[in-house]
Amino acid sequence: MSRFIKKKKEDIGLSPYALVFRGQKKTDKTVLRAMDFDLEDVTEQELKSTDDLIGRKKSKKLTWLNIDGLDNAELMENLARVFKIEQNILSDVMNPAARPKVQEFDNGIFITIKMLHFDEKNDSLSADNLSLIITDNTLISFQEQSGLVFEPIRERIRKHKNKIRTSGADYLAFALLDVVVDNYIYINGILGDKIEALENDMTGNLKKELLESINSYKSEMNFMRKHIKPAKEMILNLGKMESEFIHDENRIHFRELQDNINEASELSDSYREILYDQLNVYHSSMSTKLNEIMSILTIFSVIFIPLTFIVGVYGTNFENLPEVHWRHGYLFMWVIMILTTLVMLWFFRRKKWF
Amino acid sequence: MSRFIKKKKEDIGLSPYALVFRGQKKTDKTVLRAMDFDLEDVTEQELKSTDDLIGRKKSKKLTWLNIDGLDNAELMENLARVFKIEQNILSDVMNPAARPKVQEFDNGIFITIKMLHFDEKNDSLSADNLSLIITDNTLISFQEQSGLVFEPIRERIRKHKNKIRTSGADYLAFALLDVVVDNYIYINGILGDKIEALENDMTGNLKKELLESINSYKSEMNFMRKHIKPAKEMILNLGKMESEFIHDENRIHFRELQDNINEASELSDSYREILYDQLNVYHSSMSTKLNEIMSILTIFSVIFIPLTFIVGVYGTNFENLPEVHWRHGYLFMWVIMILTTLVMLWFFRRKKWF
Amino acid sequence: MSRFIKKKKEDIGLSPYALVFRGQKKTDKTVLRAMDFDLEDVTEQELKSTDDLIGRKKSKKLTWLNIDGLDNAELMENLARVFKIEQNILSDVMNPAARPKVQEFDNGIFITIKMLHFDEKNDSLSADNLSLIITDNTLISFQEQSGLVFEPIRERIRKHKNKIRTSGADYLAFALLDVVVDNYIYINGILGDKIEALENDMTGNLKKELLESINSYKSEMNFMRKHIKPAKEMILNLGKMESEFIHDENRIHFRELQDNINEASELSDSYREILYDQLNVYHSSMSTKLNEIMSILTIFSVIFIPLTFIVGVYGTNFENLPEVHWRHGYLFMWVIMILTTLVMLWFFRRKKWF
Amino acid sequence: MSRFIKKKKEDIGLSPYALVFRGQKKTDKTVLRAMDFDLEDVTEQELKSTDDLIGRKKSKKLTWLNIDGLDNAELMENLARVFKIEQNILSDVMNPAARPKVQEFDNGIFITIKMLHFDEKNDSLSADNLSLIITDNTLISFQEQSGLVFEPIRERIRKHKNKIRTSGADYLAFALLDVVVDNYIYINGILGDKIEALENDMTGNLKKELLESINSYKSEMNFMRKHIKPAKEMILNLGKMESEFIHDENRIHFRELQDNINEASELSDSYREILYDQLNVYHSSMSTKLNEIMSILTIFSVIFIPLTFIVGVYGTNFENLPEVHWRHGYLFMWVIMILTTLVMLWFFRRKKWF
Amino acid sequence: MSRFIKKKKEDIGLSPYALVFRGQKKTDKTVLRAMDFDLEDVTEQELKSTDDLIGRKKSKKLTWLNIDGLDNAELMENLARVFKIEQNILSDVMNPAARPKVQEFDNGIFITIKMLHFDEKNDSLSADNLSLIITDNTLISFQEQSGLVFEPIRERIRKHKNKIRTSGADYLAFALLDVVVDNYIYINGILGDKIEALENDMTGNLKKELLESINSYKSEMNFMRKHIKPAKEMILNLGKMESEFIHDENRIHFRELQDNINEASELSDSYREILYDQLNVYHSSMSTKLNEIMSILTIFSVIFIPLTFIVGVYGTNFENLPEVHWRHGYLFMWVIMILTTLVMLWFFRRKKWF
Ligand SMILES: [Mg+2]
Ligand SMILES: [Mg+2]
Ligand SMILES: [Mg+2]
Ligand SMILES: [Mg+2]
Ligand SMILES: [Mg+2]
Ligand SMILES: [Mg+2]
Ligand SMILES: [Mg+2]
Ligand SMILES: [Mg+2]
Ligand SMILES: [Mg+2]
Ligand SMILES: [Mg+2]
Ligand SMILES: [Mg+2]
Ligand SMILES: [Mg+2]
Ligand SMILES: [Mg+2]
Ligand SMILES: [Mg+2]
Ligand SMILES: [Mg+2]
Ligand SMILES: [Mg+2]
Ligand SMILES: [Mg+2]
Ligand SMILES: [Mg+2]
Ligand SMILES: [Mg+2]
Ligand SMILES: [Mg+2]
Ligand SMILES: [Mg+2]
Ligand SMILES: [Mg+2]
Ligand SMILES: [Mg+2]
Ligand SMILES: [Mg+2]
Ligand SMILES: [Mg+2]
Ligand SMILES: [Mg+2]
Ligand SMILES: [Mg+2]
Ligand SMILES: [Mg+2]
Ligand SMILES: [Mg+2]
Ligand SMILES: [Mg+2]
Ligand SMILES: [Mg+2]
Repeated sequence: MSRFIKKKKEDIGLSPYALVFRGQKKTDKTVLRAMDFDLEDVTEQELKSTDDLIGRKKSKKLTWLNIDGLDNAELMENLARVFKIEQNILSDVMNPAARPKVQEFDNGIFITIKMLHFDEKNDSLSADNLSLIITDNTLISFQEQSGLVFEPIRERIRKHKNKIRTSGADYLAFALLDVVVDNYIYINGILGDKIEALENDMTGNLKKELLESINSYKSEMNFMRKHIKPAKEMILNLGKMESEFIHDENRIHFRELQDNINEASELSDSYREILYDQLNVYHSSMSTKLNEIMSILTIFSVIFIPLTFIVGVYGTNFENLPEVHWRHGYLFMWVIMILTTLVMLWFFRRKKWF
Repeated sequence: MSRFIKKKKEDIGLSPYALVFRGQKKTDKTVLRAMDFDLEDVTEQELKSTDDLIGRKKSKKLTWLNIDGLDNAELMENLARVFKIEQNILSDVMNPAARPKVQEFDNGIFITIKMLHFDEKNDSLSADNLSLIITDNTLISFQEQSGLVFEPIRERIRKHKNKIRTSGADYLAFALLDVVVDNYIYINGILGDKIEALENDMTGNLKKELLESINSYKSEMNFMRKHIKPAKEMILNLGKMESEFIHDENRIHFRELQDNINEASELSDSYREILYDQLNVYHSSMSTKLNEIMSILTIFSVIFIPLTFIVGVYGTNFENLPEVHWRHGYLFMWVIMILTTLVMLWFFRRKKWF
Repeated sequence: MSRFIKKKKEDIGLSPYALVFRGQKKTDKTVLRAMDFDLEDVTEQELKSTDDLIGRKKSKKLTWLNIDGLDNAELMENLARVFKIEQNILSDVMNPAARPKVQEFDNGIFITIKMLHFDEKNDSLSADNLSLIITDNTLISFQEQSGLVFEPIRERIRKHKNKIRTSGADYLAFALLDVVVDNYIYINGILGDKIEALENDMTGNLKKELLESINSYKSEMNFMRKHIKPAKEMILNLGKMESEFIHDENRIHFRELQDNINEASELSDSYREILYDQLNVYHSSMSTKLNEIMSILTIFSVIFIPLTFIVGVYGTNFENLPEVHWRHGYLFMWVIMILTTLVMLWFFRRKKWF
Repeated sequence: MSRFIKKKKEDIGLSPYALVFRGQKKTDKTVLRAMDFDLEDVTEQELKSTDDLIGRKKSKKLTWLNIDGLDNAELMENLARVFKIEQNILSDVMNPAARPKVQEFDNGIFITIKMLHFDEKNDSLSADNLSLIITDNTLISFQEQSGLVFEPIRERIRKHKNKIRTSGADYLAFALLDVVVDNYIYINGILGDKIEALENDMTGNLKKELLESINSYKSEMNFMRKHIKPAKEMILNLGKMESEFIHDENRIHFRELQDNINEASELSDSYREILYDQLNVYHSSMSTKLNEIMSILTIFSVIFIPLTFIVGVYGTNFENLPEVHWRHGYLFMWVIMILTTLVMLWFFRRKKWF
Repeated sequence: MSRFIKKKKEDIGLSPYALVFRGQKKTDKTVLRAMDFDLEDVTEQELKSTDDLIGRKKSKKLTWLNIDGLDNAELMENLARVFKIEQNILSDVMNPAARPKVQEFDNGIFITIKMLHFDEKNDSLSADNLSLIITDNTLISFQEQSGLVFEPIRERIRKHKNKIRTSGADYLAFALLDVVVDNYIYINGILGDKIEALENDMTGNLKKELLESINSYKSEMNFMRKHIKPAKEMILNLGKMESEFIHDENRIHFRELQDNINEASELSDSYREILYDQLNVYHSSMSTKLNEIMSILTIFSVIFIPLTFIVGVYGTNFENLPEVHWRHGYLFMWVIMILTTLVMLWFFRRKKWF
């Protein structure tokens, strides 16, 4: 299955306002979870119907609304109405192929980025879309499918009466993005361990599997780099954004994000270079081996070809072939052959072939 | 036939004001179609004579004038007069080799871009020019030949009483450009599917056709990238343009276009990298195969060359060749040959050649 | 002969004000031609002596003074005096190795660029310097040698009573530069046709001449790109220049020039890529062919080497070699040899070598 | 052991304020050394307990507090309290994987960079983190482990009553960074000597060890470049920083740092290119050698194959084989064979194979 | 001997104010030459003692003080005192490894650049440092060793009563830098001639020396490019510098310098590309030759291997081998062999191997 989301023919010319799901369904049922908290209290709740959304807007607590599954158009319309989000924003939310970007709108900030997952079994990466909407007192997060990626953040909210409960939706968004970027670094590390482990297989007899591994990791690394690059650009824009929805005292955290995404980017650059080096070493070894094979073939051939010719000469049936009648003819032939061999060996020694 | 439009010798030194067709005719007859609409009504009409242009200027409805065929100099002159378009703009319209660009003039905005078509039969891309002129209450679009590319937009106008009917010529231009860029992404996807399908042919016996496919897709991908790059640049300029002909509330849609062209550009980068990887894998496999062939040849030669020499020795006709007269001479020869073979095999085993 | 102009040892440390010719003479005699025109009249005249320059300055008509040959120091001094041009400008005019650039001075604008010529016979490019000086009511153009490149412009002036007669020296300069850049595109097209024609030679038996052609076009394309790059930069600077010698209504034409030089630059990029692709295809084909040759050699060797060994065994002269005395010994040998051959063939089939 | 610090799974989602050590311990015990000085006096002291920190803040002398070991969370908390350093700064100090950067905070400037060490024994580089905090009258430096790198600076402070004692914490930070960057240049030189020494091994018989050396130095050079690049960026930012903690008269020294880091960067570029050149030379030599081997094999084979065929013909046992009964049959065979050989030799000479 | 200046271990941590020579001595004795001139008079003088410096400052003539040899710390201190030059400037003068740069200080401008020398004997480049200090009415130039590079400038001052005598220290600095850059272009030309001469050796039998030449010129070209790049950057900064020590009317000359350094840079780019092309052509030729060798070997082997097998069959000693007793057995064998050969030849013809 392709890891790239292809545009469907019928989506060409679609209005940017149409609330249509433009991806591949990865989940059966849309799940809404709300978490409301201030310094004192934390309540968690799974929303059954989209009617539960109404009234939420007025709560003075900070609300984190997490939605797993992007294909529920009715829900999107309700969100648009309740939280006064423009349709073209929610249309982007419903398009998992959307490039990482940040965009301001009248009532908030819209952020989209890719979350990477590493499948240990197949040594392969996959990407899920994450969209965040920062609006008054509320952060809405949209994921393509349910997962435990943000559980550490939920734990921090539940257990610690500190900054994360009181710094607003923008800080919460930062915390989620930080998890995403930390994951980039973490996955780089996992792939990196596997890449560095290949070094040991580079000595001795080279196996075809080694080449396949190098090429496969190269392709995974490219997949990762392709997603890190626009994310880096997005986080840079986020850091420079002048918006009422980002508190000045939280601005420093977005610089932290920049450092982290830069670290992820540089790590992937480093591993890519190591892979290129390994490929070069592999090919050099192969060509050294070919040279060695050809040398041995040539040494053998060049030594034995004249010898075989000589015995051929004395295998001819000429009636008056003098040497075969000599008393020491056979010995004579061996002397000639040994001399020939010595000359050849001296020649190869001079050529430094062995 | 070349896919690049070549400059004709006689066009060198031509005035930039001359209304001369500078391309290759792709259509027999110029076709004019007008679509007039406001929130309430939609009327469509094929214009027979260029006289029908007159009077259109004053209609309060929004007019979309679509022209297929660029070689009608008389029509261009009428357009220039009726809509007060500068000649150097229309001269660019008549040059299908013109680079994608956006240019403001006194009475409007001129946009030119390439539409890509994928010919499934030959697996090859071609490019047609599209020019748009946004002027008061009117959008004029020029295509090299007739086609159904914009039919979805016509349908949206006919069926939906919404934004597209009321947001002006700039929004309509955006909708057309969006179709063009969506097509880039769509074609990337088609090519991408074919490229990813090549992976399956990379295992086992490599066929020459595989290499030809890779090289052919590489060349199509380059053709596409060559057209996407200046289009990206143009759309960036369009997004930054300060003009009375672009409504502030439509500005956001041009940012959407930027995201889409970026997505197209990144997709084509990704597929290009995959093609380069496939080429590398192909060449590595070829060189591995050569190594294997040479190993087998060498093993065979090196084992049999000494054996053939030995039987040659005992095929000589020396009168006093002692071994041939021995009772177990023949056996003796076989023992020598088997020992020689075992030494060779041990040697190859140590070299790890099999 | 080298296509690069080398600095002479004695020119090192020369004052930038010295009016010394710093190139290779390409013409025997300096030729001055003047063309004076306004909307009504056109007069053409070949100037015999540099005295004819005097008085010209006061004419109200627009004057185009074209000079073929750069080595006349006396003429240069007269020009400096009559038209009040700084010596360091004219010193640059006399240096055909000067980089494409645009430079403002007190009484005008100085522009220098390379004109490319394609020699069909040798399939090779050469470059000539063109310098333009825009000053009050006068355009002075300097060419290394006489040619017909600007004849279409002269024709436009002679035949058409329009813009080109009335828009000033800057518009005339634009028209000349436009010819130069159109020539870049035209030559790109000629080379491009030849490059695309190579594709047909890429199938079947590869000739050495094909490789030589690819390498030769690659080198010509590089030569062209080397001159287009700084010209592009110069035209960009020209477009941004704030000068009283460029009329605001002509500014748009210099943007046209930018589009054209960009088209030339992108075309040469495309052809370069095609050449690189052809080289890769050539090398791949060569290596495929080597693989095929080695396979055939190996198949033959590996089949016959054991057979030749077997017949060698029965060619030995051992007295008690049992098989030669058998009744069906000869048949027996053939059975062994045929079995051996079948095993080999099965082996190669499994290896998928044929 | 990997030279890259990997993110631990449990650190994902950690608050940026948490004072948790995020690296690998390289030291057993945290060591604090204080150096207080003004123009007149210098006192040095090893701090036993973190209580000793209190009161230091008020001293009018300049204090250089050096801390070896980053894993003492309690110490970090005390530093935060005493010197009013934000927790997110100290959290970065405790993360040795942090990218080189400079960051202003309310009470000072935070700088982090990598120190490189060259292990002569294994010809390999390693990197340690260095963090600097410039605050009122105090410079705090944090190292991953103890070392003598900064001893020359201590000596300058002890011995010379000059600028270094009186120019403030920012000048002291400059001096330390200068040592780090000088070390980059010094290590470049060491590696460079080894790389240039490889040239001598490039002539004559190429050893596998040579290739391994080139590849190993290439990888070390990449490791260095990976750390120099972000350090260069950081020093550029430091030079442009507007801060009350950097005295205007010291600003010039940071320009000096830029020159030095640029020199380091360019040196590593140069050596990298030399390594690539060496690789190319190595591969060219290998392929030249293969050509030579194949030529010799072919010359031998092509000369002897027909000769061996001829003697084979006269070794057949046909009853009525005429030549074997000729009087000069044997001589006749030798004449044929010598003629054949001469033709072959002439053929190879024409092919210019020897 | 290495062409790169390595940092000495003891220089790490050295103060930027220390007047210590940080290079390799290239001259025995420091030589000071003063040239004083105005429009009317020129006097030249070799200064014996550094005391002669005193009083010079007040002269109204323009003074050019040239110093060969950088290791005289006492002289540097005197210069610092007399001309009020900051120590960190003179410390840079004493470091020949300093990167090309321009730096303003209170009493003047400091410029440093590399002078390149081409050693015709060894076809190798070397670099010497040149430092210039522009201060009131005085230009001080520092060279690593004595040479005749600036003799043409001295001649211009002695012989011509013009601009160079009256335009100040900045114009004189420009003249010296112009000589340095002209030298870059001149050396490019010399190397370029040698590179272009290699083309002739590319046809026919390729010698190993050719490859060595290409690689050696490539390395020299890289050495040159490494020094031109930062010089280009420096001259760009010089052109943009706002300083009282650069007269507005001289500013135009620094633009001339920019053009020249750009020309040098582009020339070296061109020659580098030509060298890369030559390398590719060399390798292609080698691989074509290998293909040819292998074809000939294979044709010979494949034709003779079956023939040799056939004669081997009839060389066996089977008692009842029917063919040897046939009347036309020998003829029969030849017919079989000729048919076999014809089949082989037809096969190769079809494969287009000859
Ligand atoms: Mg993307
Ligand atoms: Mg994307
Ligand atoms: Mg890939
Ligand atoms: Mg990092
Ligand atoms: Mg990093
Ligand atoms: Mg590398
Ligand atoms: Mg390689
Ligand atoms: Mg274009
Ligand atoms: Mg292509
Ligand atoms: Mg194009
Ligand atoms: Mg995308
Ligand atoms: Mg992408
Ligand atoms: Mg790749
Ligand atoms: Mg390859
Ligand atoms: Mg140039
Ligand atoms: Mg070239
Ligand atoms: Mg184009
Ligand atoms: Mg390509
Ligand atoms: Mg880093
Ligand atoms: Mg590496
Ligand atoms: Mg790094
Ligand atoms: Mg440098
Ligand atoms: Mg350097
Ligand atoms: Mg190189
Ligand atoms: Mg330098
Ligand atoms: Mg080099
Ligand atoms: Mg350098
Ligand atoms: Mg140039
Ligand atoms: Mg040049
Ligand atoms: Mg070139
Ligand atoms: Mg190659």
